[in-house]
Amino acid sequence: MREALKEAQKALDKDEIPIGAIIVANDKIIARAHNLTETLNDVTAHAEMQAITSAANYIGGKYLLDCTLYVTIEPCHMCAGALAWSQISKIVYGASETKKGFSLLNQGILHPKTEVVKGVLADDCEKILKDFFAKRRK
Amino acid sequence: MREALKEAQKALDKDEIPIGAIIVANDKIIARAHNLTETLNDVTAHAEMQAITSAANYIGGKYLLDCTLYVTIEPCHMCAGALAWSQISKIVYGASETKKGFSLLNQGILHPKTEVVKGVLADDCEKILKDFFAKRRK
Repeated sequence: MREALKEAQKALDKDEIPIGAIIVANDKIIARAHNLTETLNDVTAHAEMQAITSAANYIGGKYLLDCTLYVTIEPCHMCAGALAWSQISKIVYGASETKKGFSLLNQGILHPKTEVVKGVLADDCEKILKDFFAKRRK
Repeated sequence: MREALKEAQKALDKDEIPIGAIIVANDKIIARAHNLTETLNDVTAHAEMQAITSAANYIGGKYLLDCTLYVTIEPCHMCAGALAWSQISKIVYGASETKKGFSLLNQGILHPKTEVVKGVLADDCEKILKDFFAKRRK
């Protein structure tokens, strides 16, 4: 999660909403990404989406079996839907997303085999985001 | 929708699941896309996702206000989530997606201002998909 936080910091440096993600397979980081929605003018450029594309490119196949996503904030519906298609083995996230987080849906949209772990370094993951919005509102 | 069906045909020609999408603004097609998940080895390469990215690129902004998406099949959770972020004005789809369609969720995930029209050329949109899977199973 510390590596995902480094990615969030990279987003912050670009004045993007600071969310970062990495994907690990066999104890190795195979994808790193951070939110680039402003830079790319593209609502689909969330950290998780880019990490999925990048990891699939590394693997040479579109399914992320035996892969773990670490992301600083709980994935939204779009990213959860993408993660479902990828059949990723495990998702570890930091802070919860209390408005658009996938866990707010009453029905599961992830792949049934995907394991979910939440709350890892949640305070750090939330702080970088809160500080960003606090500054923006000034 | 006939233009979206042409895009679905392009996907079929590449042995991709035949789903096509276009985005219209001011009576002009500003984006065309078809499913490329196999070609790009990427589960996020749905027709709608590419159309969103392409339309935002055309507009030079990430919000698709006053735009209409025409897509041959009902969008999945991922695409619906992306469409929600885009704040697109209208979604018109052909055939319903009875397993992963966004309308199967009990909670709305689209932007509250997005209008949805379904069933346009539904038979044609479904037929190209059914024929594809029927051939695959042979």
